[in-house]
Amino acid sequence: MIRVTVWNENIHDREMDEVKAIYPRGIHGAIVGFLNGMDGIEAKTATLDQPDCGLPDEVLDNTDVLIWWGHMAHGDVPDVLAQSIRERVNKGMGFIALHSAHFAKPFKLLMGTSCSLRWREGDYERVWCVDPGHPIAEGVPACFDLECEEMYGEFFDIPQPESLVFSGWFRGGELFRSGCCWTRGLGHVFYFQPGHETNPTYHNPHIQKILGNAVRWAAPRNRRTTLDCPHHPPVEEMVRQGKDIGWY
Amino acid sequence: MIRVTVWNENIHDREMDEVKAIYPRGIHGAIVGFLNGMDGIEAKTATLDQPDCGLPDEVLDNTDVLIWWGHMAHGDVPDVLAQSIRERVNKGMGFIALHSAHFAKPFKLLMGTSCSLRWREGDYERVWCVDPGHPIAEGVPACFDLECEEMYGEFFDIPQPESLVFSGWFRGGELFRSGCCWTRGLGHVFYFQPGHETNPTYHNPHIQKILGNAVRWAAPRNRRTTLDCPHHPPVEEMVRQGKDIGWY
Amino acid sequence: MIRVTVWNENIHDREMDEVKAIYPRGIHGAIVGFLNGMDGIEAKTATLDQPDCGLPDEVLDNTDVLIWWGHMAHGDVPDVLAQSIRERVNKGMGFIALHSAHFAKPFKLLMGTSCSLRWREGDYERVWCVDPGHPIAEGVPACFDLECEEMYGEFFDIPQPESLVFSGWFRGGELFRSGCCWTRGLGHVFYFQPGHETNPTYHNPHIQKILGNAVRWAAPRNRRTTLDCPHHPPVEEMVRQGKDIGWY
Amino acid sequence: MIRVTVWNENIHDREMDEVKAIYPRGIHGAIVGFLNGMDGIEAKTATLDQPDCGLPDEVLDNTDVLIWWGHMAHGDVPDVLAQSIRERVNKGMGFIALHSAHFAKPFKLLMGTSCSLRWREGDYERVWCVDPGHPIAEGVPACFDLECEEMYGEFFDIPQPESLVFSGWFRGGELFRSGCCWTRGLGHVFYFQPGHETNPTYHNPHIQKILGNAVRWAAPRNRRTTLDCPHHPPVEEMVRQGKDIGWY
Repeated sequence: MIRVTVWNENIHDREMDEVKAIYPRGIHGAIVGFLNGMDGIEAKTATLDQPDCGLPDEVLDNTDVLIWWGHMAHGDVPDVLAQSIRERVNKGMGFIALHSAHFAKPFKLLMGTSCSLRWREGDYERVWCVDPGHPIAEGVPACFDLECEEMYGEFFDIPQPESLVFSGWFRGGELFRSGCCWTRGLGHVFYFQPGHETNPTYHNPHIQKILGNAVRWAAPRNRRTTLDCPHHPPVEEMVRQGKDIGWY
Repeated sequence: MIRVTVWNENIHDREMDEVKAIYPRGIHGAIVGFLNGMDGIEAKTATLDQPDCGLPDEVLDNTDVLIWWGHMAHGDVPDVLAQSIRERVNKGMGFIALHSAHFAKPFKLLMGTSCSLRWREGDYERVWCVDPGHPIAEGVPACFDLECEEMYGEFFDIPQPESLVFSGWFRGGELFRSGCCWTRGLGHVFYFQPGHETNPTYHNPHIQKILGNAVRWAAPRNRRTTLDCPHHPPVEEMVRQGKDIGWY
Repeated sequence: MIRVTVWNENIHDREMDEVKAIYPRGIHGAIVGFLNGMDGIEAKTATLDQPDCGLPDEVLDNTDVLIWWGHMAHGDVPDVLAQSIRERVNKGMGFIALHSAHFAKPFKLLMGTSCSLRWREGDYERVWCVDPGHPIAEGVPACFDLECEEMYGEFFDIPQPESLVFSGWFRGGELFRSGCCWTRGLGHVFYFQPGHETNPTYHNPHIQKILGNAVRWAAPRNRRTTLDCPHHPPVEEMVRQGKDIGWY
Repeated sequence: MIRVTVWNENIHDREMDEVKAIYPRGIHGAIVGFLNGMDGIEAKTATLDQPDCGLPDEVLDNTDVLIWWGHMAHGDVPDVLAQSIRERVNKGMGFIALHSAHFAKPFKLLMGTSCSLRWREGDYERVWCVDPGHPIAEGVPACFDLECEEMYGEFFDIPQPESLVFSGWFRGGELFRSGCCWTRGLGHVFYFQPGHETNPTYHNPHIQKILGNAVRWAAPRNRRTTLDCPHHPPVEEMVRQGKDIGWY
């Protein structure tokens, strides 16, 4: 069972009628809703307004994949929490950054770049699959349309993705690397651009399929226990003496 | 002319007779010495003990490629300076991290990983070239030996390099991804493992050749002026109206 | 259920007593043996001496992942079969090349390089994991030893792997990128260096674990039906008219 | 001085008035024309109708970078010539495939994939730069427009590029990975999508700038003399005995 925590800053969701109409339980509620209908996934929500920003150690210790939606309140996430998330990803936790989380602190720490981009609300997007053999593209068509989405345009300042799975075409004349994969330590990171708060994107079945695939792809296979940098004797000698080498 | 700044924490170099014997002008002095003998390169030194850690804005503003050697005093580099270097790399400045700079603050910020590794002083290293067509490998043999070097061993917790140019073999039984390239924003980053302070590594002609190549590879081709995330009208309309799009 | 076909040229296995002693049912028999003990995998053998080289269309049509061991008889595999395998990989079939299959026709066609390397029988190898979060590394230790293996050394002329999962250290002074992943079309390709015919490598539990992981990683998620290059009307118009776009 | 050979099948250029009007000296003549105006580049033409398809050994032996335009007559290029070009790239020669050369034999051999795509003549393309720090992007704006170009659309069946430098947006609703880099052996390969024969693409100053940059990027740094796979003694012993290891 993959244990997913869907984190949302949960501000638009509470304050804007337009958003409440689309996502009565919040964006996090919608995502948890469809994920929990998928085999092998168990999803819970966490929000910024909860104690410890909804992410105390006992929650993170029991999270295999952390999904992140944020926009207005990136600055309210403590640096120490962002740093702790980055380290947990290095040890194996999966991390999925949605839409405006391109500027979320943990995502920026994982990327090492500015993560800036061009933007404009209210365009028409067509999402093209450019790596159809990738696990995150399983069961997704060659392209699908989002009748209203926020345009995000290049140059998107991210490290060249290890796998570029989706690219977005916008009627206004822009394109964007919309679905991107990286490894950071033992952890896997996926960024996915669609998901503006005033659009019903998370009700789209292709989007739901992609996020379910992404959770399975990002679930940890191995985990590290520390990030130490160990001094040790020559492995040649250790082997001759029958000593265990082990992960540090 | 590529303007290089070679930064060194300059502590071992002043305090340890063993290091002074090998590098009378410091590691930074040795590196600047051979780089200045190369066509098209103009190198200067900067050290931690200088005002502003040797890297005030006017120095960084005139640096195309920043080379970094640090070990004991990573913690003495202010976070704000490390962050400023990361942003300058995102805008196009090259960055070369040497040896124990795997734990330097700017390098860790650029990587987004723990950068931990195994280590042991006093082994014998053979550096193999695994990407002989790479610009940094120009004029470098299939392999070359360093009779005494510090062993750095896997798992080296870095993002998978965009190009892995060199791998190190150690007599004690370990191996290491020793020469690694990444892009971060418009800037290019090279990590190179050899260069322990008590070994004469920077006097080795292959090492010098590699660092000269790395400087040329990391020199910026384009530069950004800001890291803004601009709102703008549809490019389609802008083009029809003959408006300039421009980098942001 | 992942349908695996393990192909072997099956020459050493029949002709050399030394090999028969280690692999009484052939290398293919040994691999099929342990794979069939793994959940969700159904493996069969095919050999060069069978009709159609053991790989008629009805076998390939029912293969999700093709594992290949060859050495002496690369030239006996018809070009048209090699080409057909390459196309099937482009359409989604997984392909795992073992040891001296670095020179197998289908592997070379998939790589586009010479695939040359250095070699010497009878060295001691230590396999290091350099991407411990990769699915193929699940449950594999930081390093493990093969007391006798053939040395394969750099420069290994392959395209830079999309993921480098394992590197091999040899006592004789060489190293090698031993476990390498690529995508080719919709198909996934894994090369794994250990497995010399006179060494009991495929009886090693770590090797078995890695091959089982590799089968799961290489199993197809999507499949293409053709490799056509279609002319078609603007997708914008097709969408407005409610037409299906589809994979070609 | 980088020695460039611009190869063209030269059929449209001779037979279609529409093409002759745009490229009176042929596409090859136009490309050679602007390349020869650039510092450090010396370009010559070669065409299919010449003896040995314009590419006898003495021409290829004196070529640092081979540029290829083909469309109708891919099948007229002998397999043995295509294979020889692939091997020369593995040894260090640069290769630039233009537009419909996505289906050229040497390019397909270098890729190992079907290289299929969607297409339609007569669309409007906007080329976006998605890796502005790359050498091939030097001096190129954030985006530029081609008022008439052939649409090439995803899925483009190529190995994931090592660097994706440009992406194309088409008014008809498609997008494409338009400027892609790979390493194959010691050689560098660049594919660039714009350049349909009935459009004046090669007169566009941005296109010319990009091709000049690509020539410099693809020029060889090192060269191999053979593609042998050598047996040799342990490097450890060779070093102790002072023997030369050398490239094979």
